[in-house]
Amino acid sequence: MIDTRVADATAKANVLVEALPYIREFAGKVVVVKYGGNALAGTAGIEPLGPFCADIALMHLVGIHVVVVHGGGPQISDLMRRLGKEPEFVDGRRVTDEETIDIVRMALVGKVNREIVSAINRHGPYAVGLSGEDAGLIQVDQRDPALGFVGDVRAIDPTIVQRLIAEDLVPVIATVGVDEAGQAYNVNADTVAGAIAESLAAEKLVYLTDVSGLYERWPDETSLVSRTDVTGLQALLDAGAIGEGMIPKIESCVAALQRGVQRAHILDGRLEHALLLEFFTKEGVGTMVTP
Amino acid sequence: MIDTRVADATAKANVLVEALPYIREFAGKVVVVKYGGNALAGTAGIEPLGPFCADIALMHLVGIHVVVVHGGGPQISDLMRRLGKEPEFVDGRRVTDEETIDIVRMALVGKVNREIVSAINRHGPYAVGLSGEDAGLIQVDQRDPALGFVGDVRAIDPTIVQRLIAEDLVPVIATVGVDEAGQAYNVNADTVAGAIAESLAAEKLVYLTDVSGLYERWPDETSLVSRTDVTGLQALLDAGAIGEGMIPKIESCVAALQRGVQRAHILDGRLEHALLLEFFTKEGVGTMVTP
Amino acid sequence: MIDTRVADATAKANVLVEALPYIREFAGKVVVVKYGGNALAGTAGIEPLGPFCADIALMHLVGIHVVVVHGGGPQISDLMRRLGKEPEFVDGRRVTDEETIDIVRMALVGKVNREIVSAINRHGPYAVGLSGEDAGLIQVDQRDPALGFVGDVRAIDPTIVQRLIAEDLVPVIATVGVDEAGQAYNVNADTVAGAIAESLAAEKLVYLTDVSGLYERWPDETSLVSRTDVTGLQALLDAGAIGEGMIPKIESCVAALQRGVQRAHILDGRLEHALLLEFFTKEGVGTMVTP
Amino acid sequence: MIDTRVADATAKANVLVEALPYIREFAGKVVVVKYGGNALAGTAGIEPLGPFCADIALMHLVGIHVVVVHGGGPQISDLMRRLGKEPEFVDGRRVTDEETIDIVRMALVGKVNREIVSAINRHGPYAVGLSGEDAGLIQVDQRDPALGFVGDVRAIDPTIVQRLIAEDLVPVIATVGVDEAGQAYNVNADTVAGAIAESLAAEKLVYLTDVSGLYERWPDETSLVSRTDVTGLQALLDAGAIGEGMIPKIESCVAALQRGVQRAHILDGRLEHALLLEFFTKEGVGTMVTP
Amino acid sequence: MIDTRVADATAKANVLVEALPYIREFAGKVVVVKYGGNALAGTAGIEPLGPFCADIALMHLVGIHVVVVHGGGPQISDLMRRLGKEPEFVDGRRVTDEETIDIVRMALVGKVNREIVSAINRHGPYAVGLSGEDAGLIQVDQRDPALGFVGDVRAIDPTIVQRLIAEDLVPVIATVGVDEAGQAYNVNADTVAGAIAESLAAEKLVYLTDVSGLYERWPDETSLVSRTDVTGLQALLDAGAIGEGMIPKIESCVAALQRGVQRAHILDGRLEHALLLEFFTKEGVGTMVTP
Amino acid sequence: MIDTRVADATAKANVLVEALPYIREFAGKVVVVKYGGNALAGTAGIEPLGPFCADIALMHLVGIHVVVVHGGGPQISDLMRRLGKEPEFVDGRRVTDEETIDIVRMALVGKVNREIVSAINRHGPYAVGLSGEDAGLIQVDQRDPALGFVGDVRAIDPTIVQRLIAEDLVPVIATVGVDEAGQAYNVNADTVAGAIAESLAAEKLVYLTDVSGLYERWPDETSLVSRTDVTGLQALLDAGAIGEGMIPKIESCVAALQRGVQRAHILDGRLEHALLLEFFTKEGVGTMVTP
Repeated sequence: MIDTRVADATAKANVLVEALPYIREFAGKVVVVKYGGNALAGTAGIEPLGPFCADIALMHLVGIHVVVVHGGGPQISDLMRRLGKEPEFVDGRRVTDEETIDIVRMALVGKVNREIVSAINRHGPYAVGLSGEDAGLIQVDQRDPALGFVGDVRAIDPTIVQRLIAEDLVPVIATVGVDEAGQAYNVNADTVAGAIAESLAAEKLVYLTDVSGLYERWPDETSLVSRTDVTGLQALLDAGAIGEGMIPKIESCVAALQRGVQRAHILDGRLEHALLLEFFTKEGVGTMVTP
Repeated sequence: MIDTRVADATAKANVLVEALPYIREFAGKVVVVKYGGNALAGTAGIEPLGPFCADIALMHLVGIHVVVVHGGGPQISDLMRRLGKEPEFVDGRRVTDEETIDIVRMALVGKVNREIVSAINRHGPYAVGLSGEDAGLIQVDQRDPALGFVGDVRAIDPTIVQRLIAEDLVPVIATVGVDEAGQAYNVNADTVAGAIAESLAAEKLVYLTDVSGLYERWPDETSLVSRTDVTGLQALLDAGAIGEGMIPKIESCVAALQRGVQRAHILDGRLEHALLLEFFTKEGVGTMVTP
Repeated sequence: MIDTRVADATAKANVLVEALPYIREFAGKVVVVKYGGNALAGTAGIEPLGPFCADIALMHLVGIHVVVVHGGGPQISDLMRRLGKEPEFVDGRRVTDEETIDIVRMALVGKVNREIVSAINRHGPYAVGLSGEDAGLIQVDQRDPALGFVGDVRAIDPTIVQRLIAEDLVPVIATVGVDEAGQAYNVNADTVAGAIAESLAAEKLVYLTDVSGLYERWPDETSLVSRTDVTGLQALLDAGAIGEGMIPKIESCVAALQRGVQRAHILDGRLEHALLLEFFTKEGVGTMVTP
Repeated sequence: MIDTRVADATAKANVLVEALPYIREFAGKVVVVKYGGNALAGTAGIEPLGPFCADIALMHLVGIHVVVVHGGGPQISDLMRRLGKEPEFVDGRRVTDEETIDIVRMALVGKVNREIVSAINRHGPYAVGLSGEDAGLIQVDQRDPALGFVGDVRAIDPTIVQRLIAEDLVPVIATVGVDEAGQAYNVNADTVAGAIAESLAAEKLVYLTDVSGLYERWPDETSLVSRTDVTGLQALLDAGAIGEGMIPKIESCVAALQRGVQRAHILDGRLEHALLLEFFTKEGVGTMVTP
Repeated sequence: MIDTRVADATAKANVLVEALPYIREFAGKVVVVKYGGNALAGTAGIEPLGPFCADIALMHLVGIHVVVVHGGGPQISDLMRRLGKEPEFVDGRRVTDEETIDIVRMALVGKVNREIVSAINRHGPYAVGLSGEDAGLIQVDQRDPALGFVGDVRAIDPTIVQRLIAEDLVPVIATVGVDEAGQAYNVNADTVAGAIAESLAAEKLVYLTDVSGLYERWPDETSLVSRTDVTGLQALLDAGAIGEGMIPKIESCVAALQRGVQRAHILDGRLEHALLLEFFTKEGVGTMVTP
Repeated sequence: MIDTRVADATAKANVLVEALPYIREFAGKVVVVKYGGNALAGTAGIEPLGPFCADIALMHLVGIHVVVVHGGGPQISDLMRRLGKEPEFVDGRRVTDEETIDIVRMALVGKVNREIVSAINRHGPYAVGLSGEDAGLIQVDQRDPALGFVGDVRAIDPTIVQRLIAEDLVPVIATVGVDEAGQAYNVNADTVAGAIAESLAAEKLVYLTDVSGLYERWPDETSLVSRTDVTGLQALLDAGAIGEGMIPKIESCVAALQRGVQRAHILDGRLEHALLLEFFTKEGVGTMVTP
């Protein structure tokens, strides 16, 4: 019996020792994690966020400066329908009138953001919710009057994020933008994540999605790409191997990697503790992209 | 004509000079301003918040550490009704089931808080929205299982507020509380304002309401009380001169004044720039309460 | 009656709100104010300095880093005559023998500087007097042996001024220079003001004089120039529109604007609160010069 | 195959998640680890130090302020014999003449300390060697002239240790003491470890020994005491259950626990990664003592 | 010849080595040096200040925080007479009307202070002149309306002095006081020196005078007292052994020693480098007083 | 008799005043002092280190940032022989097998370094011993497998030295190097001293040797070179005027002077207080080399 205990203890110790060089490598580095609305869809309450937020808390505790960026498309559509409003999309962009932008803010800032912050803070008072309107964080221009309050990122002012990082807090950012007149805008969360990673000169930009990674011959599961680079991404795009919903992620990856971010990752958010496995074990999971 | 210009210039200069000793007095002091949901009710968009937020920006710029605390009862009820749910109150407390607390967060954090932050940030990137769930700010216990997720303040952890103040930012706090399990709660905004003022050892606690102040013989408008103290408040309470909705404010005032806050004010939020007049002119407005 | 009070209150609030964008604009900026000896001439005690020093205190309190530079020609001549010595000038420069430089220091550092410091400090312990001899501030070379101890600015070491600014104090600088052997020198205050503004990369350099500003057709009062630039100044100089006493000011303006100072102003020091009107109202007063 | 990989990944993730609350608990806390000379005896080169030093590096990386204290009795005796000098002990204390203290320093500071520092620094430039003579760290009085340069701790000046901790370094302390005249002394390493833990108000004091912990009925291995307190220790002492070599450890534990240290641990240094298992897993190993 | 050089070098080295323990003892300590107007009387220019100011510079460079306090009675009287005004004293206090206080400031701040600052700054940009009016430094009450503007110290605000010390500068303080209305006052320099030493919790308070120290049987030069304490001072006072001009010094010494100053010294300012000899050699000079 | 005392006091004061400009010049500058093993050879205990360490303490106290670098060749050979191992040299380099490098560490870190640290710390808790293994300080590559663990400097990481300097401590560095695998190496102390001086951009690099300096016609004592430059050194080398043991010093001097060090000095360590005489008197001793 004692032998089993010792063997078990040894196994545990080995996992921790395996993590040592990774902890050393990432300590003090900024990592931007994009958490997708799809990963959250259909969840009720904060329970399903548990493993993800435990990962964030652990990364924070071993000295990684984690920044969480999230959208919440399904949650917005759900609230719209509950308020008797049918979501409408043009070229994949949500048509956003004045009432809709109000609903966007309620769903993103008042619901999704709150749930992530609460779930992280079960581990300690680490997380602080932000919206792109806070302290001029996400500044946008209107994309197209026909779409209403849909914005394109004009500039990121990362000051408030840097201040919270310096205070050893975990910023959780709802992707609402603001124009110069103080008007709120709906903005693509993947694009924002890339722009924030760039503005922070992040070490890593991680997309948690609902697929296992990129595939050479999608949807052939045996063709998962473990590692590629910007050129490789372009080849996949040209080959039509990238699904439509993945395209903004890929474009943001390319832009961020070209402007100073060191690594981008596409991970499967459905795999519990995907972040821990990617960051602290030899194997890694999902697809890694280098500049 | 030149004479008129000179007279006009002199008058302007005199207003500024009149403000000088008040600016000196309040520079570097913490002032907690409770902005009531009633003052916001019926407004659409952020336009009506303009004068209030200009006052906050000016107070911030002359060196006052302003903290805004807000509720949003009418906005919660409005969103509930839009979602097909009839608000229900017991002894003035909103019965708050799981769906309602979700709506509370959307209305307070996703709507009212956002509107105040946006309106202040038109003057510069000063404001940052917070909810009581951020970094353990407002910790509550359940009041009564029959009321659902209605909380009483157990403790305030002012650290995140102090950090933002130290970074020269204006915290705008939505009064959602959190229990030890990370569950969100509805909590009385007047009470929270007093508790936050106390936790920050604030110089002043200001309630912006929809009355002109306290009255000796309410509703006789000529009996407005300009200045009183804790004993005087008690006398007004005993005399039944305090309207029901005002009672939590008065109780919070008394508690805060007894625990280190220097002054409390009940101001008429309907008067444009009531804060500027109270803080920077000789006359003052509303009712001031001393310990 | 109440209506009048409300109207009056509204007017006051509007003046403060009008000041808001200017306070925001100048907060944290360095402004060098040259206060002329003529403005002080004939005054007895510090009473007449009141409005000027109230302006300095207010500017300081709203976050402007004010630096006051002053001369004191009339006060020097007055003390010389009281000590039985007739002032003598060559090309507008005071002939300064050993006894005279002693008198210069007594008049500037021991009298004028003290009066300004005292008048500001009535509003709070903000001002600290400096002479160019302190911590190597104003370093000069002898201009011409025939003039005695009359110096030209060789270098400014702004360290002590920057330290006092960093400590949130208002430096008040008497324009006595020092050579490498520690000998004191008389030096032109207008020139020093420009050199100090340049060394601090000041936002603004303001000359408070005893005229209303620059005139296109001096002394035709209707030809006041509200705004010009370095080229415009040169044209006025060429046209002979600049009075002799104004020439060092103009030359210092040009030099300072060419080396990083953003704006120069010539204001009428005889107008009460001229600084407040220029800094915090829409109208402005006097002449503004841009690079 | 994929299932095995997933199961393996899940197991790894679970170990990391199990560590999360412990990492949170100890982050920023000071832990003093006494590493015994016996644990090192017979080793050649730094290889055998590997697992111990990996543990120290990991503890350091997750934010624990580790301080290593070591002796080196066997190494001293070994060097003495190589230099033709027979070790001599009186009541368990080494008789230390002038030549011996020279050898003590060479063995402790020049050999053991260097090996520990090198082994830790394979993981990164974290460790810095100290001797008790550095910056007045370990101040002693002579114990007994008959013993020669054998000292008792008079005072610890933890300043240099605190400075290195503040610089995020791992102090590794050789237990050589110094008297007021600058003379070096041999001093008991267990006692020094307790005194240093006390002077740093350490959270934990850990003795790594060559036994599994304390036993109720030593040497009955089934009677290992998992947890006890100061009273319990006294009972064990009274019952004669403590081996002689363990007595200074026990006395230092008691003293340190009575003066502010929160926990003491007796761990088996022969068990690889004993520190990690004690600090980061639910089971713990060895004996824990509470005040 | 070489031998002479070596002997000479050895002698020099020994003086420096002798200074070592004193430098260590005083490094980082505050020392207030009162420099008397008498010591300056009759001097023309800054030459005679040379040795004194070299001492101040050396003390500053080896890490002592020196604060110089000075009066200037003879210089005030001299300027009064040159301006046709006869000095008048009542009980040793100068009758000070409005014109006189103007002269006091010119003599102290505009002349004596400037000369000391200049002489120190020949060694480097170390000294900054202050008057008691700067930043509320010396606050006084009127002593007696019959005396005019003669003040008694009410309070010292040492903030500005501490700031300059923290910036590694040498404050040189002219003893002009200020009342709450901003009016300047003449004030006894010995008393101010003691009050400033007390407010800074100075290590030492040194009076540089024109006598060799205190005498048991004044003026018997062989009865110089090398060391005494507060009780001994009282005995000397009772015995009438203290000359009239020395009495304010003695009273200030007693007050300062009773409120936290560690040592007071009465040194002979006529002895060149008296400060260096007192601070850095074994012999010491003058009279030392302990609490 | 009094006259003698005064003359003596005056002489002492003059030495201190003579030191003033040098103290000013070197305050805050980094000075690297290489102390040679020869200077220590044959000494027993720390007594003979007294004058050298007094000099270091005094330099430290007057604000010089002193860094001591030392070797210890004779002490290594001595310990080798005591352990029955005959030192063997190839081209002046010690053949260093595994046992020898162990002895090198014991002699340098465990003996010489300790003695210097102790002797300095008699004057106060100023010195902290370092080895090149601490925090990655001296990184080396193997010179030649035939020589064993003899290293050439690959890189210096001065961080730990700069941290200790910033904490106002005196680093005393034993010249043991470390390779990437954590293996210790023997390395030439003169070369290390130059490399450390370079990495710290030191003001001065001082070699304390057992000769009086460099000679034009060695060993003709009358041909001592007081001052030369890099070109002059080269000429001496070409002329064969440099003894063999001096060559690494000279080469390190040249390298350091070419990369930012301002002055190098070759002083006679046998002359008591040679450092004080060189640093604080007009005469200077030994040979100074400029870039």
